[in-house]
Amino acid sequence: MQSNKQSNEKLLSLPELAGVDALVAMSPENFSYVGGTFVLTVELLRPRHGYAIVAKDSDPVLVVCSIETSLVQEESWIDDIRSYTEFKDNPIDALVSVLKEKGLAAGKIGIDLSYLPYNSYALLVDRLPDAEIVDTTDVVAAMRGVKTGDEVAKIESATQITHTSVIDAMAASRLGETEKTMADRIVTGLIERGAEGSLFGVFSSGERTRMPHALPTDRVPERSEIIRFDVGGRFGPWKSDFARTYSTGDPTETQRDFYRNLREVQEEAIESVKPGARAEDVFFACREGFEKRKMGFHMPHVGHGFGIELHEDPMLRPGEKTVLKEGMVFNIEPFGFDKSGIGYHLEDLVVVTESGNRLLTLGLAPTEIPVIGKPLDQQ
Amino acid sequence: MQSNKQSNEKLLSLPELAGVDALVAMSPENFSYVGGTFVLTVELLRPRHGYAIVAKDSDPVLVVCSIETSLVQEESWIDDIRSYTEFKDNPIDALVSVLKEKGLAAGKIGIDLSYLPYNSYALLVDRLPDAEIVDTTDVVAAMRGVKTGDEVAKIESATQITHTSVIDAMAASRLGETEKTMADRIVTGLIERGAEGSLFGVFSSGERTRMPHALPTDRVPERSEIIRFDVGGRFGPWKSDFARTYSTGDPTETQRDFYRNLREVQEEAIESVKPGARAEDVFFACREGFEKRKMGFHMPHVGHGFGIELHEDPMLRPGEKTVLKEGMVFNIEPFGFDKSGIGYHLEDLVVVTESGNRLLTLGLAPTEIPVIGKPLDQQ
Repeated sequence: MQSNKQSNEKLLSLPELAGVDALVAMSPENFSYVGGTFVLTVELLRPRHGYAIVAKDSDPVLVVCSIETSLVQEESWIDDIRSYTEFKDNPIDALVSVLKEKGLAAGKIGIDLSYLPYNSYALLVDRLPDAEIVDTTDVVAAMRGVKTGDEVAKIESATQITHTSVIDAMAASRLGETEKTMADRIVTGLIERGAEGSLFGVFSSGERTRMPHALPTDRVPERSEIIRFDVGGRFGPWKSDFARTYSTGDPTETQRDFYRNLREVQEEAIESVKPGARAEDVFFACREGFEKRKMGFHMPHVGHGFGIELHEDPMLRPGEKTVLKEGMVFNIEPFGFDKSGIGYHLEDLVVVTESGNRLLTLGLAPTEIPVIGKPLDQQ
Repeated sequence: MQSNKQSNEKLLSLPELAGVDALVAMSPENFSYVGGTFVLTVELLRPRHGYAIVAKDSDPVLVVCSIETSLVQEESWIDDIRSYTEFKDNPIDALVSVLKEKGLAAGKIGIDLSYLPYNSYALLVDRLPDAEIVDTTDVVAAMRGVKTGDEVAKIESATQITHTSVIDAMAASRLGETEKTMADRIVTGLIERGAEGSLFGVFSSGERTRMPHALPTDRVPERSEIIRFDVGGRFGPWKSDFARTYSTGDPTETQRDFYRNLREVQEEAIESVKPGARAEDVFFACREGFEKRKMGFHMPHVGHGFGIELHEDPMLRPGEKTVLKEGMVFNIEPFGFDKSGIGYHLEDLVVVTESGNRLLTLGLAPTEIPVIGKPLDQQ
């Protein structure tokens, strides 16, 4: 989280930006971003709240469970670290104590009301009856949305590790193996190349590709079937999210055509990603690509902001008018079903540049459907 | 989630048990348990709520994002499946529509208020101004706490896969390798043995063992250092959580003594796990073990219920008076620091039986500190 150490001024401007006296970042993503530290348990053990508190005209404070103190002392840019004892103290009381100390018992407090559970909210209101509690989830999320060069470099590294693992795993996969064996090859590959762990590993073949998020099974794909997967790894607070579609060999004409069309649509959608475009414009470009090729279009979104959170705002969906800016990072992921109902998916990552965008994956998928068991350059 | 198909009656009794007209299970864990289906995105993409709704005298209903319909149709025991379109509909509106259809607009509705974000709660209250909304997080959690034989079998399999991976990975690890290389060997091993992915992989050596949840780095452990790790995998909705402490070779007397003592303490704590004991009794047994050996005791809990959630109630902590029952599953995990501040951790899983408990891991750790690079039976 070194990048945050260089971004203190930006983070310290959050209360002013949000129009509050103090901003409390506490969703796992907002806490990581504002606190400049990655505490695994803030996500995995939800009651173990962490708060990164930035108040106007005052030094920022980090509140964590006492078990995590040594970790955040090492990582965070915030020096003033307070802790609470799990089960003995309610974390909300530790937060309230900091806010009172800052003279904000009757202040305007911004916090992540899209994450804060109702029970914690009720306790906060009970303890600070004179405070005004407002939602600042999106203020932090919007700041997170525009990445620094360092942040882009981290996301790029994560996506390229994932992409490399996929290319190698699929070249090594063979007919006769189970879905699980092939999926494991991807996931273990990305861990061995640097991911701390897997985040998800959706993998299906044949009829099972109809289900968007099926997990791999012991099914053995047959020849002339489609294999489709969507995998992600953990890299500290950063993540990867990457999808490809392969043939098990001897693709049918329907399969070849649908894949080729989807790949073209993805390229058109990516071309529409540039500064000044609205998020929904990318959706419309993608939908138009489906429609002019007479492919059924069923997607509520065609991609999403990406980085610390798996789906970051802005989503590439109709009605999302956010204007794209340099430094925003997006997954572009057209997904469709051929006339037999078989699912195809391609997902690549781009960063918005001064004049357009730059691909962060190693390259788009081959224009013709790739077949497992052969390196991509020998297809 | 086959086990749930046999447990419909138990699940259908939830409204009566909770004293509500309808119970809405929607935290990722409660949704999985009551819905009998594992939807990865309910956890990974938090706004994509899933609701398992069990109303009195009426058929249960499942509400999911339309993208997940095909998956839950295949998995869930609930036949009546409704869906909402992401971004177009707020999931709360889909929930409200089911509750109104059941004539419960002015009913008493139980929902997971320890999970439901404040924003969603506010919308629910706005849409159902005459309903009484109460917290039923713990009612479902308590039912989840007592496992069926099928559920124990799944958890046992997950923990044994994890334990086997650890034994093999540590026997294969060598001085000169990095923390990350050794940690990867564990995590990829558990994926190759059947886990869908990793859940977490805490791994540290030497001075870094002071931090309870440090992630592996490129540090190369030196001879006579301590290696400590705590790892878990994903097995559908089920998880594993397992910790061990190793020496890199030539352990010092301090290290040997501290480890031997911690191992004895763990055995004493496990002996205290039996039907009729209170959760806090296990904590006290463990603390007494530390104290009589003059080991510093700093733990807010000494273990926790386990299964679908990483920390399930009851926690083994002071003040937790829940009486242990046959079928409850606990991790027992003493953690301590030797006089140099180096951290040691052992974690094993047990199920409460009719007369005491049964170990679900392959066996407790060796009584003398094991050394990396050698099979346990050749230590």
